[in-house]
Amino acid sequence: MKRAEVIGYLGRDWERCCARIERALTTDIELLGSINASILEHGGKKLRPMLSLLSARALSSGDGPLSEDSIRYAAAVELLHNATLLHDDVADRSDTRRGAPTVMSLLGGTAAVLVGDFWLVRAVDEVLSAESRRLEVIELFSKTLSDLAEGEMFQLQKAGSDDTTEEDYLRIIYCKTASLFVTSCVAAAKSVDASPQDEEIMRRYAKALGIAFQIQDDILDYAGGDLGKPVGQDLREQKITMPLLGALSSADEKTERRIRAAVRDAADSEEKRSLVLGFVDEFGGLDYARRRLQDYVDEAVGTLSPLRDSQAREHLIALAEYTARRNR
Amino acid sequence: MKRAEVIGYLGRDWERCCARIERALTTDIELLGSINASILEHGGKKLRPMLSLLSARALSSGDGPLSEDSIRYAAAVELLHNATLLHDDVADRSDTRRGAPTVMSLLGGTAAVLVGDFWLVRAVDEVLSAESRRLEVIELFSKTLSDLAEGEMFQLQKAGSDDTTEEDYLRIIYCKTASLFVTSCVAAAKSVDASPQDEEIMRRYAKALGIAFQIQDDILDYAGGDLGKPVGQDLREQKITMPLLGALSSADEKTERRIRAAVRDAADSEEKRSLVLGFVDEFGGLDYARRRLQDYVDEAVGTLSPLRDSQAREHLIALAEYTARRNR
Repeated sequence: MKRAEVIGYLGRDWERCCARIERALTTDIELLGSINASILEHGGKKLRPMLSLLSARALSSGDGPLSEDSIRYAAAVELLHNATLLHDDVADRSDTRRGAPTVMSLLGGTAAVLVGDFWLVRAVDEVLSAESRRLEVIELFSKTLSDLAEGEMFQLQKAGSDDTTEEDYLRIIYCKTASLFVTSCVAAAKSVDASPQDEEIMRRYAKALGIAFQIQDDILDYAGGDLGKPVGQDLREQKITMPLLGALSSADEKTERRIRAAVRDAADSEEKRSLVLGFVDEFGGLDYARRRLQDYVDEAVGTLSPLRDSQAREHLIALAEYTARRNR
Repeated sequence: MKRAEVIGYLGRDWERCCARIERALTTDIELLGSINASILEHGGKKLRPMLSLLSARALSSGDGPLSEDSIRYAAAVELLHNATLLHDDVADRSDTRRGAPTVMSLLGGTAAVLVGDFWLVRAVDEVLSAESRRLEVIELFSKTLSDLAEGEMFQLQKAGSDDTTEEDYLRIIYCKTASLFVTSCVAAAKSVDASPQDEEIMRRYAKALGIAFQIQDDILDYAGGDLGKPVGQDLREQKITMPLLGALSSADEKTERRIRAAVRDAADSEEKRSLVLGFVDEFGGLDYARRRLQDYVDEAVGTLSPLRDSQAREHLIALAEYTARRNR
């Protein structure tokens, strides 16, 4: 996927969406305004609104300009996403994100939590201001925020034990990542009054894509990527992710017990982390994770086949394929 | 106001509201469930749902049981209130609240932010599940969350300077406290399909009550109260509140400049705090604040006079009068 190509294809709709996001963050409180501006400046990839706009286009009859509601929902998913990033930064005490200092590190937890709440409210406002004022869309957003909170709490709970299964893992990454992808695509479907069948297609596409996206994130945590983040961060947080689950699935019971015990101590022990990293390498954990990743990518792409042929659909397919290849 | 009397008067409706709050927090994630249970156990005064239920009763034709929607909105304001307390605890790094350790101090920022988000979502769910599904009520809640975030940010901004005026102060406490009181009472009015006039009465009552409530909080920060909190906490956070504003209004320009400069340094200097505390004492800051407080209490009580005579109305009046006398 070439990001510039997608933006070129979306054209004026992309600009409308970015402008909406900016306008939504207007406030007469200077401190808040300057924080918002700084976050926007390091704005990230805006993958979710892109996904939302492409979905709306793919389900529309032409490639013409989208309705205000489609634009509003796309803006709202990005606002919600940033709100949750702000809250995550507080939770994780992160000092940098997207190569820039976090609000958390600059102004402390107070500001980061509150700015997050502010963005959250503005996301809700965007949805509420939609012309058709669809309650189901508010429910979608609310469900996603609930999934995010429940997913993180479940992950936290699991990090305290050592018994994470692949099923637990898939539940966590659905909640943490795929749920917002689903909201991005399904809200878009609702904004163009798509048929229930088409809406279901977008839901399944988004779910598979979101899971694939997170698996790739978790692969990069073992394999390293272009961002130069340190390898093994998930282990430091005692998180058991797909590469480790893959390796564990090939190990005998005794080895599995030993490795799981090592994960429990991995937070403070470089030695335990090395042991686990070596184990994942030896038992083909990355290959396993990459196969599972490809399954989800194939599922996402396959799901789209009943849709009419369109540039938007091609871009959605490319986006899924890119997910498996990205290095950041 | 005797809390037990109000609860006795609300009877079954009070129990229904408490049961709804408890049910709203059900989750199959054990860690989250146990945190929720512990917060409920140290449940606080539940002033806001009380206010909401009394408002619904005062605007109904009889004292009979309230509709499900009235109960839902009352539960939702308490859920929202607790959500914001959780976020405040992270922001303030508070170790105790209501005499119990905070989630923040027990489990760290991660849990507190996320549990806060979870309660927030459950508040939204309560509103969404209302039978009449009033979008204006969602907007009320959304506006309040926005007010809370903007108010805290504005306060933070003002704490960095030394030029807080009474107008700034009133804006901050409207956003921080009165806005949720307004939502409690106005959502209740909407739940009983009150006339626009009655809804406006409840809005004005709640606004005056909320401001009075926060002024009393700020008085207790200077005068001390039953909870044994240390005096002068607001000064440590460089917050200029009503008692200080009152004293400043009687001082000459030179003294005002000197005191405002002292506030700017009050965070780290016991000496500067003593200077300001002495100044507030000498220049009658507490008397001034108590007069302003009484003005708002009188306004709240007066606002209710057009309502039909009822036990609920009497309780609302008593609640306003109690606000000026409470010591905690």
